Amino acid sequence: MKAELLYEGKAKRVYQAEGKSGQLVLSYKNDATAFNGVKKDSFDGKGRLNNEISSLIFTALHEKGIETHFIERLNETEQMVVQTEIIPLEVVVRNVASGSITKRLGIEEKTHFDKPLIEFFYKNDELGDPLINDEHALYLTSATPAEIDEIKEKALEINKQLMDLFQSINITLVDFKLEFGRKACGTIVLSDEISPDTCRLWDAATGEKLDKDVFRQGTGDLIEVYKEILKRLEAKA
Amino acid sequence: MKAELLYEGKAKRVYQAEGKSGQLVLSYKNDATAFNGVKKDSFDGKGRLNNEISSLIFTALHEKGIETHFIERLNETEQMVVQTEIIPLEVVVRNVASGSITKRLGIEEKTHFDKPLIEFFYKNDELGDPLINDEHALYLTSATPAEIDEIKEKALEINKQLMDLFQSINITLVDFKLEFGRKACGTIVLSDEISPDTCRLWDAATGEKLDKDVFRQGTGDLIEVYKEILKRLEAKA
Repeated sequence: MKAELLYEGKAKRVYQAEGKSGQLVLSYKNDATAFNGVKKDSFDGKGRLNNEISSLIFTALHEKGIETHFIERLNETEQMVVQTEIIPLEVVVRNVASGSITKRLGIEEKTHFDKPLIEFFYKNDELGDPLINDEHALYLTSATPAEIDEIKEKALEINKQLMDLFQSINITLVDFKLEFGRKACGTIVLSDEISPDTCRLWDAATGEKLDKDVFRQGTGDLIEVYKEILKRLEAKA
Repeated sequence: MKAELLYEGKAKRVYQAEGKSGQLVLSYKNDATAFNGVKKDSFDGKGRLNNEISSLIFTALHEKGIETHFIERLNETEQMVVQTEIIPLEVVVRNVASGSITKRLGIEEKTHFDKPLIEFFYKNDELGDPLINDEHALYLTSATPAEIDEIKEKALEINKQLMDLFQSINITLVDFKLEFGRKACGTIVLSDEISPDTCRLWDAATGEKLDKDVFRQGTGDLIEVYKEILKRLEAKA
């Protein structure tokens, strides 16, 4: 299914799809990185888990009418997606304060935001993915003012759907990171992945962390918590 | 003229005005600080220079119909202003890239912005005045969405007037920091000061820095360059 390797990221390889113009194969790696690549490790089975989790979540979003780049899961570690021009923004939606925002703005961990907070980070490893405002996003990317608004609206709608989905499997969606891409026709759609690599997911009853924070903080077994997320999503699907 | 000391900042003391309810006396100090207070020094005459420069600039803005907290210069180092509730935002307007933005976003020094860039920093010394976006500003301050828009519009109008003013004395207005305050009646007005402490000012012909960067970078005599700014403004006034 795969032709040329187009790009290798920290957690995925991106290939042109063999004989399918405008389609890509995402191949999920077992690598885990944190703190902009400073902490690194590899976990057998992580690629499969994130590929399966992200496929289930994107499928659930499709069922709610949200357009994404996802086409289908091909095998354990690969999925087919529509080729898009990625807009170099990490779009973070926060329902509960955790992680970088608590230190950066002095907001107490676990503070609940009545209105979800949206943040843009400029996707640039050399600069350490800095926080930016809307005007920076307009200056640094090809996005228009209308597209910036559209990205925020889509992020909030996705948040609503994801909160419902995770609530139904007893998980609190604390925050997550999205990326958007522009299709050849110009439409902006959700791209990249949604997985415990890109979300903070807390067990709703116990508060147990079921996401990459167990690796960042060295407080748990990454594979076990990712398996738990997949198990709950599969039971629901 | 002064009663109780209300607040002592890095560059000014703020007193309740004697017998004048709703008015404050700003007393300019000779202290200079940089890098969030890490670099400190004192320069004889700096308080007088900034008081006189800021008074001339606020008066020029009044003549252009821009409302500010400024009432009058009282003496060499003091001025009377309307008491406002300061909104804890440092509103930065950038016409040309210099300083923190060049490293933060990888934008080359001296890049001209076709559209001036506005940035908000959360005025909080403990947190190091972090860059924030509009949603953070709404969460962290009492400003409403309409007031955030109003602050940006006022900042751009002030930029236009200041660019004209400085151009007329052969100075390029590279960037500057504003603060806004809410009067008792609710109106938001320009507050704080506008001086070589809060602006980057380059000689339009030679590019010579005529602002606090000579202190930050240890490349010139602060008092001499501040005197040059005052001399040019007085010749124009």
